[in-house]
Amino acid sequence: MARVVIDVMLKPEILDPQGKAVERAAVRLGYADVRSVRQGKRFVVEIDGPADEQALASIRELAESLLANTVIEDFSVRVEDN
Amino acid sequence: MARVVIDVMLKPEILDPQGKAVERAAVRLGYADVRSVRQGKRFVVEIDGPADEQALASIRELAESLLANTVIEDFSVRVEDN
Repeated sequence: MARVVIDVMLKPEILDPQGKAVERAAVRLGYADVRSVRQGKRFVVEIDGPADEQALASIRELAESLLANTVIEDFSVRVEDN
Repeated sequence: MARVVIDVMLKPEILDPQGKAVERAAVRLGYADVRSVRQGKRFVVEIDGPADEQALASIRELAESLLANTVIEDFSVRVEDN
């Protein structure tokens, strides 16, 4: 069994109102050092078998088709050590 | 300027219907190797100045008060290399 993490973030050029709201709240609460906040999604996928090249290709396909909207979002896939 | 990533996930013992829905969809789409999916949030926070111990303590406080509901969620903070 392997654990794969997929991070999905809005592309840098896409406005992120959720992140912006957190940013404003942080500054309002006194965290003056906060310059910007972007919010995204994180998926932890456990797969049977090893995280070999084939499994990762399959996960990338899954991310593209199901987890991320690649018109407005970027994603990255990485294997997490257990 | 430094970039800090805060990952927020539901605690393992808390049911995750969103992740479960993704898991079922993945299996239905033919990704038979997928054993489980958990969905969480990811915040990328840019701060002025370096990510020193003081800045990270402040970010941890921010995460606890604003980003995570620590009754049902765990979070982790890490500095991302630019």
